[in-house]
Amino acid sequence: MTPRKPAETQSATLAEIARAAGVSAPTVSKVLNGRADVAPATRARVEELLRVHGYRRRRAEASRSPLIDLVFHELESAWALEVIRGVEAVAGDAGLSVVLSESAGRLTPGRTWADQVAARRPHGVVLVLSGLDESQRALLASRSIPFVVMDPAGDPGPDVPSIGATNWQGGLAATRHLVELGHTRIGAISGPSRMMCSRARMDGYRAALETAGLPVDPSLVAAGDFHHDAGYRLGLELLRRPDRPTAVFAGNDLQALGLYEAARELGLRVPEDVSVVGFDDLPVARWVGPPLTTVRQPLAEMAAAAARLVLELGQARQERTATRVELATSLVVRSSTAGPAVAGS
Amino acid sequence: MTPRKPAETQSATLAEIARAAGVSAPTVSKVLNGRADVAPATRARVEELLRVHGYRRRRAEASRSPLIDLVFHELESAWALEVIRGVEAVAGDAGLSVVLSESAGRLTPGRTWADQVAARRPHGVVLVLSGLDESQRALLASRSIPFVVMDPAGDPGPDVPSIGATNWQGGLAATRHLVELGHTRIGAISGPSRMMCSRARMDGYRAALETAGLPVDPSLVAAGDFHHDAGYRLGLELLRRPDRPTAVFAGNDLQALGLYEAARELGLRVPEDVSVVGFDDLPVARWVGPPLTTVRQPLAEMAAAAARLVLELGQARQERTATRVELATSLVVRSSTAGPAVAGS
Repeated sequence: MTPRKPAETQSATLAEIARAAGVSAPTVSKVLNGRADVAPATRARVEELLRVHGYRRRRAEASRSPLIDLVFHELESAWALEVIRGVEAVAGDAGLSVVLSESAGRLTPGRTWADQVAARRPHGVVLVLSGLDESQRALLASRSIPFVVMDPAGDPGPDVPSIGATNWQGGLAATRHLVELGHTRIGAISGPSRMMCSRARMDGYRAALETAGLPVDPSLVAAGDFHHDAGYRLGLELLRRPDRPTAVFAGNDLQALGLYEAARELGLRVPEDVSVVGFDDLPVARWVGPPLTTVRQPLAEMAAAAARLVLELGQARQERTATRVELATSLVVRSSTAGPAVAGS
Repeated sequence: MTPRKPAETQSATLAEIARAAGVSAPTVSKVLNGRADVAPATRARVEELLRVHGYRRRRAEASRSPLIDLVFHELESAWALEVIRGVEAVAGDAGLSVVLSESAGRLTPGRTWADQVAARRPHGVVLVLSGLDESQRALLASRSIPFVVMDPAGDPGPDVPSIGATNWQGGLAATRHLVELGHTRIGAISGPSRMMCSRARMDGYRAALETAGLPVDPSLVAAGDFHHDAGYRLGLELLRRPDRPTAVFAGNDLQALGLYEAARELGLRVPEDVSVVGFDDLPVARWVGPPLTTVRQPLAEMAAAAARLVLELGQARQERTATRVELATSLVVRSSTAGPAVAGS
């Protein structure tokens, strides 16, 4: 069997779209420019034709606003600030401003987020831990607005450019560090299982135990959500066990700080009674007592790389093949890890 | 002497501006809309006439972009994130997106930040710890783009609407708490003296000492800059003195965390050897060990109030009198403060 090649279709012109929709070319133009003075039904018909015909606006550069859109799944914690700083630095150098949105249910009545983006015509869109559905992608593509996903939560698909970090290697390095200190009962608190970065870290954790010939005890792995409270609550559960772990890979820095609080509440010392490793290396990791051993994820650099990539995609004369870049993580050893106390002492 | 009233001048029309500039009305319109296809000299002449005549655009609502501009003096620390969240919440409810900029030297070559704002026509501008010079104000006024300053660094002037917090009362409450615990040698680390909020906190500190009949020892007051490093460095200096203070008002939370680090390095315990009070109540204040006693400043609420005020100003049919709102601060007592150790023990 010979696989059939997709027909080499020439993208439709604006005039052809107008004819098919039974409207004037200026009306199609209005829809493309996000103008409000088009009847909703007409607008929907034109949008659908633009999508079906894979219409791509030419010479979009000329009509772009000096903006980059930055969209967060959740605007929370110092994590988000590092990302904002990275995008802001690249945008500032390029003479662009950053439009910030939170994707969680923040839609204008009657107009979706993607409509707003299409109307304001930014140079590109950086999505953090979120994705786009098919119609949103088509809408942005029809306006030649490129997008890049930073640290994709799910699997973004092979045709979506994305920037991430080597989460698996990070989880491996964190856990290996604890193994090398002599720990054999090593617990973990994961992030949400729907997030790929969390799955990768946990797989790295398991790989480190397995390659060291240590058993993986599922009861020592708690399912968190990357927030401080989960670290505290699940930390209490783990540390109250009679056979409590002597070390915990906390999944991220916020959960590590929650675990600190749980240890304090139970009268356990870090690292004498329990070693703790985080993930991210937020500024606060250096400031807490004891300073946190963690896996550094270069968040600002990742965000800057995502912003640079999206600007490149906008300038490219031709379609680029999809890009997936993972920046390296590195273990930063501080004072929250030490060898386990001698049993029975 | 009868003071002369300023003449009741009618604001010039667009046609009058055009005549005075020797250009067509559409050209003035292009300048107002931030279009690039106007010769720089013409543009400058028209801008100057708009400014001199105090031109204010009518019916600006219709042509506004669904944006709020948020401008930071410095995009740093969890402090900024709280502010972003506050503005984002109000903007989201109003169907607007937030454009983020850092004022520190981030200007597009050839076009200033104010030009960009005038061109994108947001519903309003919230400035955080920064101000506008006269020409920037005139530029925004000519486009009927209102602005509000949150936590003004300098004195914003009587005609500038602003939102702040009761910094003086906060400094007073922080220091009074230490006095009531029995401390008599109470040090302080200030923020930058050019920031009004820092001056107000320090004045509150002095007022608390004076009203308690305690001497104000200038050598116990160190000049910081609100960053972690200053707290660490100046904390080392204060705590190394033979007559070291038994308690320190750290000016803000980041400096308090720096002071924690200095104390750890010197082998001093918080609060047994030195009590510490911060200011801000960032999320991290609850998470550090020991949890930090601090003055809560409702940052997200202040930012939300600033965003709401700027939207109200945009909707107002007539000029509003300037507004200065200060939201209340409150002392949050956690575990970093205790009575001084008994002398000689």
